[in-house]
Amino acid sequence: MQYIRPFESISITESLATGQHSVYDVARKFPLFPAITDGVAHAQLKDFREPLEVSYDYAKVNVGQFGTIDPSRGIDQWHAVLPPLVREGDLGEGRTSLIEIPALSSWAGLDCPVFVKDESRNPTWSHKDRLNRCTVSAARMADAPGVVVASSGNHGASAAAYCARLHLPCIVLASSTAPTAMQSFLDSYGATVLAVPPHRRWPLLVEIVEKTGFHPVSNTTPESHTGHAYGTEGYKTIAYELYVQLGHKSPGAVVIPTGYGELAYGVWKGFVELAQFGLVDSLPKIIICEPNTHGAHFTAIANRTPAASVKPTGATDAASIAVEIGGHRAVAAVQRSNGAAVTLSDAELLEAQNILAREGIWVELSSASSVAALRKTLLPSNGQSIVCISTSSGFKNYGVGDRPLPTTDGTWNDFIRQAARMGLKLA
Amino acid sequence: MQYIRPFESISITESLATGQHSVYDVARKFPLFPAITDGVAHAQLKDFREPLEVSYDYAKVNVGQFGTIDPSRGIDQWHAVLPPLVREGDLGEGRTSLIEIPALSSWAGLDCPVFVKDESRNPTWSHKDRLNRCTVSAARMADAPGVVVASSGNHGASAAAYCARLHLPCIVLASSTAPTAMQSFLDSYGATVLAVPPHRRWPLLVEIVEKTGFHPVSNTTPESHTGHAYGTEGYKTIAYELYVQLGHKSPGAVVIPTGYGELAYGVWKGFVELAQFGLVDSLPKIIICEPNTHGAHFTAIANRTPAASVKPTGATDAASIAVEIGGHRAVAAVQRSNGAAVTLSDAELLEAQNILAREGIWVELSSASSVAALRKTLLPSNGQSIVCISTSSGFKNYGVGDRPLPTTDGTWNDFIRQAARMGLKLA
Repeated sequence: MQYIRPFESISITESLATGQHSVYDVARKFPLFPAITDGVAHAQLKDFREPLEVSYDYAKVNVGQFGTIDPSRGIDQWHAVLPPLVREGDLGEGRTSLIEIPALSSWAGLDCPVFVKDESRNPTWSHKDRLNRCTVSAARMADAPGVVVASSGNHGASAAAYCARLHLPCIVLASSTAPTAMQSFLDSYGATVLAVPPHRRWPLLVEIVEKTGFHPVSNTTPESHTGHAYGTEGYKTIAYELYVQLGHKSPGAVVIPTGYGELAYGVWKGFVELAQFGLVDSLPKIIICEPNTHGAHFTAIANRTPAASVKPTGATDAASIAVEIGGHRAVAAVQRSNGAAVTLSDAELLEAQNILAREGIWVELSSASSVAALRKTLLPSNGQSIVCISTSSGFKNYGVGDRPLPTTDGTWNDFIRQAARMGLKLA
Repeated sequence: MQYIRPFESISITESLATGQHSVYDVARKFPLFPAITDGVAHAQLKDFREPLEVSYDYAKVNVGQFGTIDPSRGIDQWHAVLPPLVREGDLGEGRTSLIEIPALSSWAGLDCPVFVKDESRNPTWSHKDRLNRCTVSAARMADAPGVVVASSGNHGASAAAYCARLHLPCIVLASSTAPTAMQSFLDSYGATVLAVPPHRRWPLLVEIVEKTGFHPVSNTTPESHTGHAYGTEGYKTIAYELYVQLGHKSPGAVVIPTGYGELAYGVWKGFVELAQFGLVDSLPKIIICEPNTHGAHFTAIANRTPAASVKPTGATDAASIAVEIGGHRAVAAVQRSNGAAVTLSDAELLEAQNILAREGIWVELSSASSVAALRKTLLPSNGQSIVCISTSSGFKNYGVGDRPLPTTDGTWNDFIRQAARMGLKLA
């Protein structure tokens, strides 16, 4: 096997990570390296794999570091409470804007401020960069010959970018049905990107891991999502940023577009840590948002099971959150926070997407789910802020590039006729 | 004429702006409102219009505000040294990442750190948001019934987004030859977007301004660029951010993709202000980068004229910097900073774009000009940092969405055959 040699030397950031433990059995500990990417067998339940998460020596954490957001660094500003990171892997991720939108409060009939956390302000314009900053670093530290990811969208492109940053080969197993602009995006960072039939994508991923040693940064367990334990750690930094941006306070709720649930769990874990450090005295409700054609977490919560898998009941254009298996941890985050799972139709997502566009924020359809959910669930009414996470930009939508602009010949009369036809009366 | 009524009340930020003066004649002063958008007639030269810029009561500026970047606000963090802004118009613009790329230093044979300032991390994923934060605010404060902009790209979409944020009607006069994904982007914010034949675009813009009172946020002077005086003010904030991000220092040079030159002049003005406040003791060289098919500023500097217009000598895909008229102020910035103007072929731009992608940063072809220029001009060799501004994302390129991904049937043998064909040898 041939591959580009990794760098001879790398600089590792300091971390207070002490190891990983399984979510259901905190007595079982596993080493940090090489990172376990497919959970571990449950101690009692046959055929049930548990996700792992990273634990830290919290007693040694300097809580002063949570006071501000460093404008000169990516999320490794918080390296002490992240898994060890390769310093050179930074693309300046995170530090995304939090924008108050009064029109959303009135649209949803809420008497509290509603904010949008705009994750399209990341290096590859989605929240996935926070995850890949950590997982690609783990691949590099394990001296893996490369990284492999199964994704038709944001996750694949982000993994490709972070691999490029560390000059690590990357294989992306994508889909021929991805939006066309998304296909260009996936293919832009020099990774080996191939469209794979859906039924072969996950088996091929596992085969590549086994035969080549490439490090997987996608889930590899078919029954439920266990995933790479370092990914959720990257998402924690959203909680740290919200804490600073809201004036060192916790919001009343965080509303989150949810596929496998890593984002939702990560945000929850971040706030739990802030409470443990004595920095916040309340925790936000975690509201997870899924398409009503899928809703794996909604199903698990309704059925009181740790996780669920579902068969789609129809088609949705919310490709980034349309998944058939849920994760244990997002279910736990909703339950522990006294939150909720909300399912949404494409019509509801389109309405929310349009409302955001009319406020100056163009989002991916999946991303609009957090705003759509504002009208579909009971939210805290104690005046605390609500934060809707918008995961990605409108460039990632189906239909981008498919419709040419209407035209005018540029004469005054034709211009006002066309403008009127589009709803703008000028004379 | 009918239009959506602006809000009854708006909140204006405090500003130390005292008025505007003409660039060539500081004795001539003009009021801040309504903002003059087409320069003023030169005192001596017939038919020559001078650009205007905003002046401030610098003695009253609190220089302590330049110490940090506020993570909770857009560029109105610096409202005291910006024109008055409508507070509600904020989309959290600015605070973009500065990323050191060691591979660029070696590629360009430089013994100093090279950084990329990634302006794709703005609300509409380009630097234009800094300009429109200021110019759309000026339209709102002038109680204009709407905004009109001539643009086929980043500028038009950004203006549409900032108008949406203030619920102000927006007309975008675009081009049917814009990249297809860009056309979807332009059309996403609810503006009235029409493709107009090139020869009618600027005359129609002027006609709309005269007949409707819509506020122009594009240049309206045909001989040379005078433009909206508030736009360059928004760009100044890049200098303030660089000062913080580089550890309260000035870089040795800032290398800048250049169309009409507002960005280049804005960055220069920001550093001049920082020097005036005693915060930096040196000023960066301003290096402007143009396609070699156009090069209006290059021509003016070579001919020692204040500005120049050019006829294209060929085609270029660097649409965002392919302009036929230059601006007086960017010429002045290059001359005063002892900088340079560099012209680049599309092949050179493509090479730079590819190098950036292989470091994890996917940029618009025009944006790659700042990196391409590293090999084409003499840069400071005193160890000071070089900053390349990357103005926008790869989603804005020609060809996005045009090429489906290569496929595999997902069997191991076919996968390794396809991967090998793409340059990745796995067995």
